[in-house]
Amino acid sequence: MILDKGYGHGGDVYSRHIRLDFSANVNPFGTPEPVKAAVRAAAEELSAYPDPYCGPLREKLAALNGLAREDVICGNGAAELIYQFAMALQPKNALLPVPSFSDYESALAAAGCEPTFYPLERENGFLLTEDILARIGPETDLLMLCSPNNPTGRSVPRALLLDILDRCRETKTWLFLDECFLELTDEGKAFSLADRLGDGDRVFLLRAFTKAYGMAGLRLGYGLCKDRAFLERMCRQGQPWNVSTPAQAAGLTALDCPDWPKKGRDLIRTEKPWLSERLTALGFAVLPGDANFLFFSGAPGLYETLRDRGVLIRDCANYRGLGPGDCRIAVRTRRENEALLKAIEEAWNV
Amino acid sequence: MILDKGYGHGGDVYSRHIRLDFSANVNPFGTPEPVKAAVRAAAEELSAYPDPYCGPLREKLAALNGLAREDVICGNGAAELIYQFAMALQPKNALLPVPSFSDYESALAAAGCEPTFYPLERENGFLLTEDILARIGPETDLLMLCSPNNPTGRSVPRALLLDILDRCRETKTWLFLDECFLELTDEGKAFSLADRLGDGDRVFLLRAFTKAYGMAGLRLGYGLCKDRAFLERMCRQGQPWNVSTPAQAAGLTALDCPDWPKKGRDLIRTEKPWLSERLTALGFAVLPGDANFLFFSGAPGLYETLRDRGVLIRDCANYRGLGPGDCRIAVRTRRENEALLKAIEEAWNV
Repeated sequence: MILDKGYGHGGDVYSRHIRLDFSANVNPFGTPEPVKAAVRAAAEELSAYPDPYCGPLREKLAALNGLAREDVICGNGAAELIYQFAMALQPKNALLPVPSFSDYESALAAAGCEPTFYPLERENGFLLTEDILARIGPETDLLMLCSPNNPTGRSVPRALLLDILDRCRETKTWLFLDECFLELTDEGKAFSLADRLGDGDRVFLLRAFTKAYGMAGLRLGYGLCKDRAFLERMCRQGQPWNVSTPAQAAGLTALDCPDWPKKGRDLIRTEKPWLSERLTALGFAVLPGDANFLFFSGAPGLYETLRDRGVLIRDCANYRGLGPGDCRIAVRTRRENEALLKAIEEAWNV
Repeated sequence: MILDKGYGHGGDVYSRHIRLDFSANVNPFGTPEPVKAAVRAAAEELSAYPDPYCGPLREKLAALNGLAREDVICGNGAAELIYQFAMALQPKNALLPVPSFSDYESALAAAGCEPTFYPLERENGFLLTEDILARIGPETDLLMLCSPNNPTGRSVPRALLLDILDRCRETKTWLFLDECFLELTDEGKAFSLADRLGDGDRVFLLRAFTKAYGMAGLRLGYGLCKDRAFLERMCRQGQPWNVSTPAQAAGLTALDCPDWPKKGRDLIRTEKPWLSERLTALGFAVLPGDANFLFFSGAPGLYETLRDRGVLIRDCANYRGLGPGDCRIAVRTRRENEALLKAIEEAWNV
């Protein structure tokens, strides 16, 4: 929760009247109907406490990822797991490439850790390069990565990711890899480290239902990790009933709808290049990205102007390493994307 | 979440086939229909992130409790707030009467605090007495109370509660008061400290929708506190989106159903003495309690025997300060209570 000020994320459609939200990176098709139906059905089961083991959901997630149920932890959204991870690990020396999702830093701060920031270079399109390898040493307790990265959309190249994994194994460094946007990228599971997890590996993979299944309001995320003692430590950072009954039911149902993320990917595959081209034509510097959103620069004041017209984009000025004019937008349906471009053209008087 | 073992609470209707659950202390009438309808309606709004401010809900809770919106914090169930409270305070010296709800101790442990236990005496019916006052000194960072207490059902006598408040103000001791069961007691709000909160008071009142509105599966709790800087510190222990959209919608609707807790109280007023009398007649030592549940002793093995017959009660042997044969049961409808008594009689061969 946010008490009264200081909310710096996208998706705040509550403070003002917003008719178009491009600030939250969810599947353009929203929530699958069977998931909505599961939530409606769960409305009849609210009196009992939720299953503290998230048993059936973890069984299914484990099977889908070739792991055991004990390797899966569920959370009240992926965001909760970031905090539980940081608090369970309490790292002294954490390495954090920036710009990236700000809650990594917030979670580390809550755990009393001031991370070392590793600046990704704008000139290099904010791409993570092999220079990172030399920065991982035995003194590095933790490396936190997001691939594709939020807000830049850049993936960690596969070969580099495997080198990072090897390096972290050598130095006994924990690797936290946020794969929340992976399911809406064309590379998909091929870019995951799930099939590389070995016993005793200090690797935590973060996943969410939020994006791929349009479930941001319901809160459901999970983590994959082969260090069971560590997962138990994470559980002890919070209550036994953190995942609600509707969220568990919705998650189980969502896993039966694998075509839903695919439907989103198929749309994004055509819409993203089109939108990127149009934004470039308007004079913005658009980054080539692998995710279901686009990062572009050169638009100081655009956020405020659009917001006053009821269109919400993500002003990235408050990301560490970014500044005024840096923006992120979700890729949505053609009709919505056209409405966004129209609003930008009107606002920009081009 | 619980990884795989160690769950010691009531309400686990998932591990076995349970036909009657007396282990969770919720309103015997379950969830009000308008709350279910609010959750069904929220199924259409899952794609957007939840309101991180919980704005309308906090406004309404503040108005109902004669406080400002800034004095209200919402959580993913009251249980989450216990952990956020402990982590934000990080007390060195915490005083914890026992037996009481075990998550106080778990939350303190997560915050690195080993509390001093203050044993409530069985001979005195586990009632908190004024002896506690002498134990609160300037060195005491925190006193955690639950009234009515879980699992004993005993309230802190009103006069003593006010003396404790005065004493805590003198010694600058934080007072954490769990009022989650208050709404289902006859004393109700008269026993709350909400109208006594003064500016700068180090008092945190914990409330839940779980019990009074049968919303355990949905997860919604809140806290009342006049120390805004402290509430901000609590918020920083976790993510901005901890309270789901369905939970916020359900909470707003529940507050329009004040007759629902009253309906529960009216039933409990007749059922509790009847059930207590019947249990006494069966040879159990039943405690007089103020809550919507009953604590009784003298039944070693009863929990297991009933569980194998599909009836779940709360075995209290794992509460600090209690032992084998100590049990807690929710007071439910006459038909369910009769079924419980029948199961006990069959199990006990009386």
